[in-house]
Amino acid sequence: MTLAQTRLTLGDFLARPEIDDSPAWEFLNGVPTQKPMPKLPHSRLQLRLAQAIESLTQPLGAIYAFPELRCAFSNRSLVTDIAILRREQIPLTPEGEMENTAINQAPDWVIEILSPQQSEVKVLNKITLCLEQGCALGWLINPEEKSIVVYFPDRPPQIFSAVDGEIGRGDDPLPILPGLDLTLTATQIFGWLKISP
Amino acid sequence: MTLAQTRLTLGDFLARPEIDDSPAWEFLNGVPTQKPMPKLPHSRLQLRLAQAIESLTQPLGAIYAFPELRCAFSNRSLVTDIAILRREQIPLTPEGEMENTAINQAPDWVIEILSPQQSEVKVLNKITLCLEQGCALGWLINPEEKSIVVYFPDRPPQIFSAVDGEIGRGDDPLPILPGLDLTLTATQIFGWLKISP
Repeated sequence: MTLAQTRLTLGDFLARPEIDDSPAWEFLNGVPTQKPMPKLPHSRLQLRLAQAIESLTQPLGAIYAFPELRCAFSNRSLVTDIAILRREQIPLTPEGEMENTAINQAPDWVIEILSPQQSEVKVLNKITLCLEQGCALGWLINPEEKSIVVYFPDRPPQIFSAVDGEIGRGDDPLPILPGLDLTLTATQIFGWLKISP
Repeated sequence: MTLAQTRLTLGDFLARPEIDDSPAWEFLNGVPTQKPMPKLPHSRLQLRLAQAIESLTQPLGAIYAFPELRCAFSNRSLVTDIAILRREQIPLTPEGEMENTAINQAPDWVIEILSPQQSEVKVLNKITLCLEQGCALGWLINPEEKSIVVYFPDRPPQIFSAVDGEIGRGDDPLPILPGLDLTLTATQIFGWLKISP
């Protein structure tokens, strides 16, 4: 879905009240587009991952996970599925509370979860824009294929699949931000989509 | 399609005569799988790109393009859509002819063209295996989306789309191997799929 046929500036885009409608609108390459409406696996993985990352990463409190956070930088405005920020990157009020604002930078770690029929290359485009602007880690999660591709700013992507086959690595620990400790595997993450009887 | 349910060694796999049937079989992570049968756009792009790369790259004769070349390395056997080798990487007979052999290394530049319904992550897996083993450049071409994702061993991927929209860069020169000169764009490449009336 496209908001307007004419090219806008980032300022024009951010001034429009409807951009925070659900699903949120994004602004890339001068073109406003609306995120797809999340389905069950997307919603589930987004919540469980954000929870796990916040509650299991050591040292505790070093990073915070923000679902659907708007990040504006390089004349773009993205709404990532999960933006993970190191504590020191979070804008604070003088009272030490989080500022009531979006962020004006790429997150330290970005996670995108592919929706059915969503263009993989468009989602990858969001991740690479972040990686070019200081983001250290990008995960692209494909719930249908049960695969996670991990992108870095300085080396080739690594692929992890929870399906036995030509990719493998389902039980290998997924790469996380440097200096932190968290063990998550693709098998574990896609296991969250199972409902116990 | 899978050749056998049991895990094989690379030697077992390479000893099977049917692996060079068409479409060719590949061996990744202990699992033999058959490439999809190419459709019109795949076949067309494979030929035109191989021709353009060989005939237009300066200095002439510095690189050679090999469609459907078998490359065995790291206990895997891949058949890439186009493997591009620098002249000095091509195994030669004492008479200076190309040896009648596959290659035992990753190509210098690998190009994969996505087929309809083919798993993007499985194709990406082939590219990353090459990049981890000395390959300097990987192109992943998606004819349906008219996009080309260019992967590097040492930096984030770059995306080029011939469709006007949120990605852009359709008229930007695509990255090629260092030290060579060749100007190709996504718009130009996907233009090869048009048949003049």
